[in-house]
Amino acid sequence: MKKTLLLAILACFIHIQLNAQSIERVEPPNWWIGMEYNEIEIMLYGKDLATLTPKFDKKGVELVSHKSFENENYLFVTIRISADAAPGSLKIDLYKNEKIALSHDYPLEARNPQRKNIEGFNGSDVMYLITPDRFSNGNTDNDNVDGLREKANRNLLGGRHGGDIQGIVNHLDYIKDMGFTSIWLNPLLENDMKTYSYHGYSTTDYYKIDPRYGSNEEYRNLCDVAREKGIKIIMDMIENHCGLLHWWMDDLPTKDWINQWPEYTNTNHRKTVILDPYSTDEDKKQFTDGWFVPSMPDLNQRNPSMATYLIQNTLWWIEYSGISGIRQDTYPYPDMYFMADWTKAVMKEYPHFNIVAEEWYTNPTVVSYWQKGKDNPNGYTSDLKSLMDFPLQHAVVKSLTEEENWHSSWNHAYEMLGLDYLYADPMNMVIFPDNHDMSRIHAQVGKDVDKTKLAIAYFATMRGIPQFYYGTEYLMADSTGDHGEIRSDFPGGWPGEKPTFTSEQIEFKKYMQTILKWRKDKEVIHNGKTLHFAPDNNDVYVFLRYINDDRVIILLNKNEQNVELDFKKYQKYFPKSKAKDIISKQEINLNNPLQLKAMTAYILE
Amino acid sequence: MKKTLLLAILACFIHIQLNAQSIERVEPPNWWIGMEYNEIEIMLYGKDLATLTPKFDKKGVELVSHKSFENENYLFVTIRISADAAPGSLKIDLYKNEKIALSHDYPLEARNPQRKNIEGFNGSDVMYLITPDRFSNGNTDNDNVDGLREKANRNLLGGRHGGDIQGIVNHLDYIKDMGFTSIWLNPLLENDMKTYSYHGYSTTDYYKIDPRYGSNEEYRNLCDVAREKGIKIIMDMIENHCGLLHWWMDDLPTKDWINQWPEYTNTNHRKTVILDPYSTDEDKKQFTDGWFVPSMPDLNQRNPSMATYLIQNTLWWIEYSGISGIRQDTYPYPDMYFMADWTKAVMKEYPHFNIVAEEWYTNPTVVSYWQKGKDNPNGYTSDLKSLMDFPLQHAVVKSLTEEENWHSSWNHAYEMLGLDYLYADPMNMVIFPDNHDMSRIHAQVGKDVDKTKLAIAYFATMRGIPQFYYGTEYLMADSTGDHGEIRSDFPGGWPGEKPTFTSEQIEFKKYMQTILKWRKDKEVIHNGKTLHFAPDNNDVYVFLRYINDDRVIILLNKNEQNVELDFKKYQKYFPKSKAKDIISKQEINLNNPLQLKAMTAYILE
Repeated sequence: MKKTLLLAILACFIHIQLNAQSIERVEPPNWWIGMEYNEIEIMLYGKDLATLTPKFDKKGVELVSHKSFENENYLFVTIRISADAAPGSLKIDLYKNEKIALSHDYPLEARNPQRKNIEGFNGSDVMYLITPDRFSNGNTDNDNVDGLREKANRNLLGGRHGGDIQGIVNHLDYIKDMGFTSIWLNPLLENDMKTYSYHGYSTTDYYKIDPRYGSNEEYRNLCDVAREKGIKIIMDMIENHCGLLHWWMDDLPTKDWINQWPEYTNTNHRKTVILDPYSTDEDKKQFTDGWFVPSMPDLNQRNPSMATYLIQNTLWWIEYSGISGIRQDTYPYPDMYFMADWTKAVMKEYPHFNIVAEEWYTNPTVVSYWQKGKDNPNGYTSDLKSLMDFPLQHAVVKSLTEEENWHSSWNHAYEMLGLDYLYADPMNMVIFPDNHDMSRIHAQVGKDVDKTKLAIAYFATMRGIPQFYYGTEYLMADSTGDHGEIRSDFPGGWPGEKPTFTSEQIEFKKYMQTILKWRKDKEVIHNGKTLHFAPDNNDVYVFLRYINDDRVIILLNKNEQNVELDFKKYQKYFPKSKAKDIISKQEINLNNPLQLKAMTAYILE
Repeated sequence: MKKTLLLAILACFIHIQLNAQSIERVEPPNWWIGMEYNEIEIMLYGKDLATLTPKFDKKGVELVSHKSFENENYLFVTIRISADAAPGSLKIDLYKNEKIALSHDYPLEARNPQRKNIEGFNGSDVMYLITPDRFSNGNTDNDNVDGLREKANRNLLGGRHGGDIQGIVNHLDYIKDMGFTSIWLNPLLENDMKTYSYHGYSTTDYYKIDPRYGSNEEYRNLCDVAREKGIKIIMDMIENHCGLLHWWMDDLPTKDWINQWPEYTNTNHRKTVILDPYSTDEDKKQFTDGWFVPSMPDLNQRNPSMATYLIQNTLWWIEYSGISGIRQDTYPYPDMYFMADWTKAVMKEYPHFNIVAEEWYTNPTVVSYWQKGKDNPNGYTSDLKSLMDFPLQHAVVKSLTEEENWHSSWNHAYEMLGLDYLYADPMNMVIFPDNHDMSRIHAQVGKDVDKTKLAIAYFATMRGIPQFYYGTEYLMADSTGDHGEIRSDFPGGWPGEKPTFTSEQIEFKKYMQTILKWRKDKEVIHNGKTLHFAPDNNDVYVFLRYINDDRVIILLNKNEQNVELDFKKYQKYFPKSKAKDIISKQEINLNNPLQLKAMTAYILE
C-alpha cells in the first residue's frame, strides 16, 4: 500500500515535471501583417523545446521550417505571413510524439498604416542627444526595480542617477522651444549589469525597455507624444555586442552565437584593415570578432539566425514604436556584409527612414566607405544613408583651439570640408560639436564661451544634420573628461531641484535657441548648396548656403580683436547692400570693409 | 662740309645700329633628330625679331609656322624634324623686306641611341638627396663668378657656400659605397638672384647650369660618370615659377607669360580646392595662379608657348644629359592640365623614365589624386608615376615621437600605410624620413639615435623607393629648423677640412651602410609584396616583404625595455626556425617568445 502510494506520488511528480516544460521566451514577441519583411524566424526558448515539432493552421500563414542548434532549449520556427492574413493570434502547437506538448498564441497584429511612410531625420532636423539616465527623473518610483541588479546612486559618477522616459516626456515642450526637432536617446533597452549600467550599451534584453526608464508602452507613448509635437525620436541600437549578463549568455543556442576565442580577445580597433591591402586575415578577424570590452560579448552576425534575430529586432522596434531613425553604435565592428543586409532590410521596409552610423575616425576616406552610394574598391555597398561626421568635428575643434599657424587656423575646418567629394552624400552627414563619448564642446574649446558660440553657429548652419548634446545650451562642461562627468545630470531634471543659472548661461541658451529656432524653417540651410571661401591670412571663415537667390552668408570671426573684412570677394556671391544678422537681430550695412566684432559669428540673410 | 660729315657719321651710326639687330638667345639651343617630340617651337630673342620672317631649306626639316606676341623682341619659330633629316646645322634665315637680315645656325644633333631607353629610378633604388651648394666644394675657382650677383659667404646660413658639381663627382665612390644608387640634386640651373640663391628654386636661365656649380658639360659629365658607377641622377625641376631676375622678366614676350595680378597675390596653398565641391573659382585661381613667394614669378602654363617652352626644356635636359629621373617641385601649383601634358610628353619620349612629384600634404586622399592610374571623380589623369610620400613621413615621425596612447604608438604608421588602397601604385611612392625643407630626421625624433635608426630601418625596407638626405649618415641635425642650418655643409666637403667623427656617428654610418648595401640586390625589397601586422598593445611594429617563399620580416621595437614578443602570430607568414638579422649579422633562433632588445630594429631573412 505504501509502495503503491509512493509510486503514485512519484508518477504524479514525473507528470508534473513533464508539464513543467514551458516556453520561457518568444522573440520577436509578435509580428505585423502586411510588412515587406513577412517571413520571420521566431525564437522559442524553454527546456528541450528543440525536441518538439511546431504545427499550426491559419489562413494566410505558412509554416516554412523549424530548426535548432546543439542546444535543445531553443526552437527556431520560421513562418510566412501573407498580406491577407487576418489579425489575431496564431496558435502554434508544439508536438511531442504526435501529441500537443505545448502551445503558444503568437500575436499577428494589424499594421499602423502610418508606419510605412515614417519620415526619417534629415537636413531639416536638429538632434538633441540625451543620455536618459542623466537627463531628468520624471518618475522616482522606477529608480530602483526589484530583480534588476544595479540600484540608483547619484553619488557615483558611473552610477545610475534615475533619469527616465517620463523625465523626457516632461521636457518635450522645452526641447521643442529650444528649436530641436529630433531626439537621439542613448540606449534604453534593459541593461541588467551589476555596475555601470546607465550608459545603456550592454543590452541584456533586446525586446524590453529597461524598467528603470519605463516600459515598452511608455517608450511608444514618448514617440507618439513627441511626433505630435513635431519631434522625431531616434533610437540608439547596437548590432555589434550585447551585455555579458544578457539572459542567453548562460545558455547559448549554439557556440557560434557569439564570437568566441580561446582566451579573451579584444577588438584591435584598427578600422583601416578593411581596405588595407597589406593587412592579415587575422587582424581583420580580430577587428570584427574581437570583443569591444570584456563585458560586451561580440555577436556573431555570420550565424544566419543571429543575423535574422537582429534584423527582426530592429524592424520590430520601428514598427512597434514609430521611431524616425536609428543611431547605430560601433558601426564598422560587426560583420560588414551583415550590416549591409541590415540597412537594406530597414530601408526596404521604411523607404523614407534614416540611419546614422558611428564610425569614429578622423579621416573621411575611412568614414565615407560606409555610406550608401560610395564607389568602393572592393565593391562594398550598403543602404546606410548617414554617418556621424567625426572628421569635421575634429577639424572644427582644431580650428577653434589651435593658434593661427602660417595661414588661418580655420584651414583645418576649411580643408576637411573640402574632402566632401569623398562622401556619396555629404548632406546626410550628422555634424556635431560633441557627444556622450567625448569632452563637452565647451570644455574642448577651453571653456571659452565665445569659441563655444562659434562652434554652435558653425554646426547649426553648415551642410548636414546638426546634433547637440543635452545641456550644451547651459554651457555644461566637464573638467576631467571622465564619462560620468561628461554625462552630468541636466540642471533641474530632478524633483525639487531648482537650478540657478548665471547670466552667461542664460545668454548662451538664448543664443543657441535664436539660431535653432531660426533654422527650423530655413530650407536654404536644410537643403541649400554650400560654398566656402579659403580663409585669408586672418581668422575669419566665411561660407554661404544658397538656393538660387535665397542666400545666407555665415562669417565666423575667431580673431580676438575687431577686424575689418574686405567684403569685395564675397559680394559676387552675396550681392546685397544690407543684411540682417539673425543672431544679433541687427541690420548690417554691407559696406566694404566690413567691421566684424572680435570672436563673433554672423549669420546674415 | 661739317654738316655733311656729321650726316655721314650719323648715317653710318644708324647703319651700325640696324646691323646691331642680333639674336641674343635661342631656346632650346639645339634639338635632336629622331625624337618622338619632333615639332619644336624655337624661341628667338633679340631686338625687333618679330619683324623678321624665318626661312630655311633643309631636307627633312619643315617650317611649320612662326608667331610673335605683342613684344616684338620675340620670334617663335616652329619646325618639324623628320627622322631622316641629316644631323648638322639648320641655317635659319630671318628676312626683312625680302632680304636676309639675320641668320642662325641651329644645331640638329644625332641622338644618343641609349637615351630612349633610359631607366628611371624604381624600387631597386635608394636616393641620396644633395643640396649642391652645401655638399662639397670640389672647385674653389667657381665659388665667385663674374657677372653673377651673389658671391660665396660660408658665414651666412642663407648664403652660398661653394659646393659644386665637381664636389659631387669627387664623392661618387663614397655615395656608391654607402649603398645609394641614385642622387636627387636640388636644382642646379642658374639662379642669379641677389641673395639666398643657393637653394636653386629661382631659375634665371632654363638652359644653363649655374656657373658657380659648373657648366652644362660638367653636369652631363656627372651624369655619365655616375651612370658608369651604377648611380642614377635625378634632376630637380620647377614648372611652377622662375626667379624674379630671370632674364625675360625685364622684357616679357607677352603680359600673360606669367600670371599677373593687380597687386601682389600669393598662392593660398589650399591644395584641397581642386576637388572641393564648395570652393570658389577665385580660390582655385589663387591657388594655381598666385605666386609662391614674391621672388618667384608664377609661370602661366595656359599660354601655349609657355607650355611648349617648359616641355621642350625638360626633354632637352633629359636628352642632353641622360638623367634618369625628375623630381618636380610644387607639383599641384601649376596648371594641372599642363602638368598632365608635361608628364605625358616625358613618358612618351622616355617610356622607362620616372618622375616624382612633391605634393606636401599629409592626407593620401589629396596626394593620390596626382598619380597615374588614379580614378578621380573629375576624370583627371596624368602619366605621373611617383609622388613623395609625405603622409607616411608624417605618420612614421608621429609614431616615433608620440608616446603610446591607448594602443601602440606605431598605429600612426600602421594605419597610414593601410590607406595605400588610395594610390594607384604605392610601390612607386618615394618614401623618406626628411628632406631639404624640414628638420632632419635626427632632429625630428629629438636627437635620439635609436629612434633615428628605427626610421632608417623602416624607410630602407618598406614598400616604395627610399630617399635619404645627405649627411643623415653622420646624424646631421639642426637645432632651429632654419633652412640654412638644415642644409649644413657636409662634413669634409671643403678643401682642407678633415672632420672628426664621434664613435656614435661612425657606428651610425655603418648601420645605414649595412642596410643599404644589403638592400641593393634584394629583389624582395625592391618589388616584393608587403604585409603588416596591427601592432599589439606594445610598441613593436612588424611587417613582411615577400615574393613567394623569399621573405624578410622586419621588427621595430620602440619599447625602451627589452620585450618578449609572442612570435606565434608571425610564424604562419615567416615559417622558419632561425633567421639572420642583417643589421647585427647574428643568427636569431625564432623561439617563442622572441627576445627583442630595447629600441632596436631587426631585419630578418
